[in-house]
Amino acid sequence: MKVEGEWRRAIELAADRSSVTVLDQARLPYAIEWLNLDTLAAVARAVKDMHVRGAPLIGATVAYGVAIAMHEGIALDTACAQLSATRPTAINLQWALDRMRRVLTPLSAGARRDAAFAEAARIADEDVALCEAIGAHGEALIHTAAERARPVRVLTHCNAGWLATVDWGTALAPIYKAHERGIPVHVWVDETRPRNQGLLTAWELAQHGVPHTVIADNAGGHLMQQGLVDLCIVGTDRTTRGGDVCNKIGTYLKALAAFDNKVPFYAAVPSPSIDWSIEDGSTIPIEERGADEVRFVAGREVVPATSPVANPAFDVTPRRLVTGLITERGVAAATADGLRVLFPEQRT
Amino acid sequence: MKVEGEWRRAIELAADRSSVTVLDQARLPYAIEWLNLDTLAAVARAVKDMHVRGAPLIGATVAYGVAIAMHEGIALDTACAQLSATRPTAINLQWALDRMRRVLTPLSAGARRDAAFAEAARIADEDVALCEAIGAHGEALIHTAAERARPVRVLTHCNAGWLATVDWGTALAPIYKAHERGIPVHVWVDETRPRNQGLLTAWELAQHGVPHTVIADNAGGHLMQQGLVDLCIVGTDRTTRGGDVCNKIGTYLKALAAFDNKVPFYAAVPSPSIDWSIEDGSTIPIEERGADEVRFVAGREVVPATSPVANPAFDVTPRRLVTGLITERGVAAATADGLRVLFPEQRT
Repeated sequence: MKVEGEWRRAIELAADRSSVTVLDQARLPYAIEWLNLDTLAAVARAVKDMHVRGAPLIGATVAYGVAIAMHEGIALDTACAQLSATRPTAINLQWALDRMRRVLTPLSAGARRDAAFAEAARIADEDVALCEAIGAHGEALIHTAAERARPVRVLTHCNAGWLATVDWGTALAPIYKAHERGIPVHVWVDETRPRNQGLLTAWELAQHGVPHTVIADNAGGHLMQQGLVDLCIVGTDRTTRGGDVCNKIGTYLKALAAFDNKVPFYAAVPSPSIDWSIEDGSTIPIEERGADEVRFVAGREVVPATSPVANPAFDVTPRRLVTGLITERGVAAATADGLRVLFPEQRT
Repeated sequence: MKVEGEWRRAIELAADRSSVTVLDQARLPYAIEWLNLDTLAAVARAVKDMHVRGAPLIGATVAYGVAIAMHEGIALDTACAQLSATRPTAINLQWALDRMRRVLTPLSAGARRDAAFAEAARIADEDVALCEAIGAHGEALIHTAAERARPVRVLTHCNAGWLATVDWGTALAPIYKAHERGIPVHVWVDETRPRNQGLLTAWELAQHGVPHTVIADNAGGHLMQQGLVDLCIVGTDRTTRGGDVCNKIGTYLKALAAFDNKVPFYAAVPSPSIDWSIEDGSTIPIEERGADEVRFVAGREVVPATSPVANPAFDVTPRRLVTGLITERGVAAATADGLRVLFPEQRT
């Protein structure tokens, strides 16, 4: 990813080799600041308060969080419990903790520190590879769409770009690939209230020179009715083995509009975002975040204190509205069979 | 309507009987300020810049605008042309100008001033009566819903309350009626980006003590999936004779979600909001408003200047998604036949 012209990752091992450096996403796009996270508590706070966000990046970050906890001499169970409690919806978080636990549990306390940093680095490197593979598979879809419309107009919701991963992104990876290949692309960027992650998407697209337009979350349906959207690509915080896609609140509304207007609707789903333990998305825990995220915009109280606020952070798009799941192994139908074909080793 | 405990209308003839006083909706809910509009130019500016907004209130305001123009000695055609150019989507604007023109054209220049103020007052009084009748018909729907759920949870988008009319409101009139009758109601209030008219709705509901919760525009679909919405009621800026409902951008997305979750979806439609000249809503002109409405929130630049913005202000909900149209004569099916039954005098 390109930050002010320099190639970086969204999370990097710091020079001291016992802490990590992350882009502070709570400050973007207004300020570009790197945070150094050097304690378990700092990692947990950064995830909970969304200085670090995006399901794949959360996975890599908590993996490093376990490693940092080992460096601090904190017990593995304590570390995993504290990190596990930060956010409930993204399955990558549990996936990464399970993996760290599986690797570290057999080891002696003395061997855990180095093994933990090595495993976290593997998770981070693998995330880059998964995202790049998703980019390649998704690029083919954009390439096909380009036979009918140029530029290919892609609508996305929230931020599933490189900021949400270690690099490349999930939903945006195909767009970066297509843009690099010279396929003309234009991205409709949903603002994504209440936290406006669309502005993160706009910012990273601008860093790479990808043409885009920011719209209110209300506008996408109308644009699809007008024939101005060729395909939708979104990320996911958890996709079930049956193909239901849990993603940022409002995704479901865009999927309904895409279905109603025969616009293909894809979710970019790296396998660590698949919850093989559940079939039906309606059982996914949906995080309710603080009212102030709705009440305040850019530090100003927009909703008066006389009015209560509700703030569910995710919704579930049922598989029947999803054209396909772009995984690192190819594009799957959003069904149990579709995923099983690509991931036969997953027996449930 | 109750403003700080005092009963008022959203537009009132001023004491000088040659100007009008309106609540400045560009300042609400942060400040309660009344604007005096005493020239045609001031009226046109107030409508264009949305100090006055809401299709029915726009109708009454431009009617008074014609009267004020007559008081200024401005030609009828000039006045109508200037007011007509302010906003393209709400049909009430053209309806009110047509009506003023029909009444005033046969009269001598000397007789027009008093006739114009009288006709504008009739339009305003009639609007109150239309809205109150919509309230009564809509209240019956809430009453029925109360047999299954208490409180009745109504989702609304934008502001179609008394602020958007001369009094009572359209979509909110049934809610006020039900609340007065002691039927427990709770209103989910869509924030309604980019202009946040949901905060006007929240403010007026708070003035009347009606329980409500503000949500991001992204949240409504999820709430419907969770069974937390009993019905949706929205207003309209123009409904076709075929029953297609043009309303604030984002309405279509909520109608899709309501349909998908079997939640009844009603539009409150006073007859001056019906465009009898067209059948198909896709031909309605959709206003594209300025980028700064998206770019700035509460005076702060939220979308960086490096990213372009699009801002369509309305969308069209096709009749197939609309359970019914609450008119002043009763609830009509959202079809040409449904409206013809209630308005047989309209031959098209």
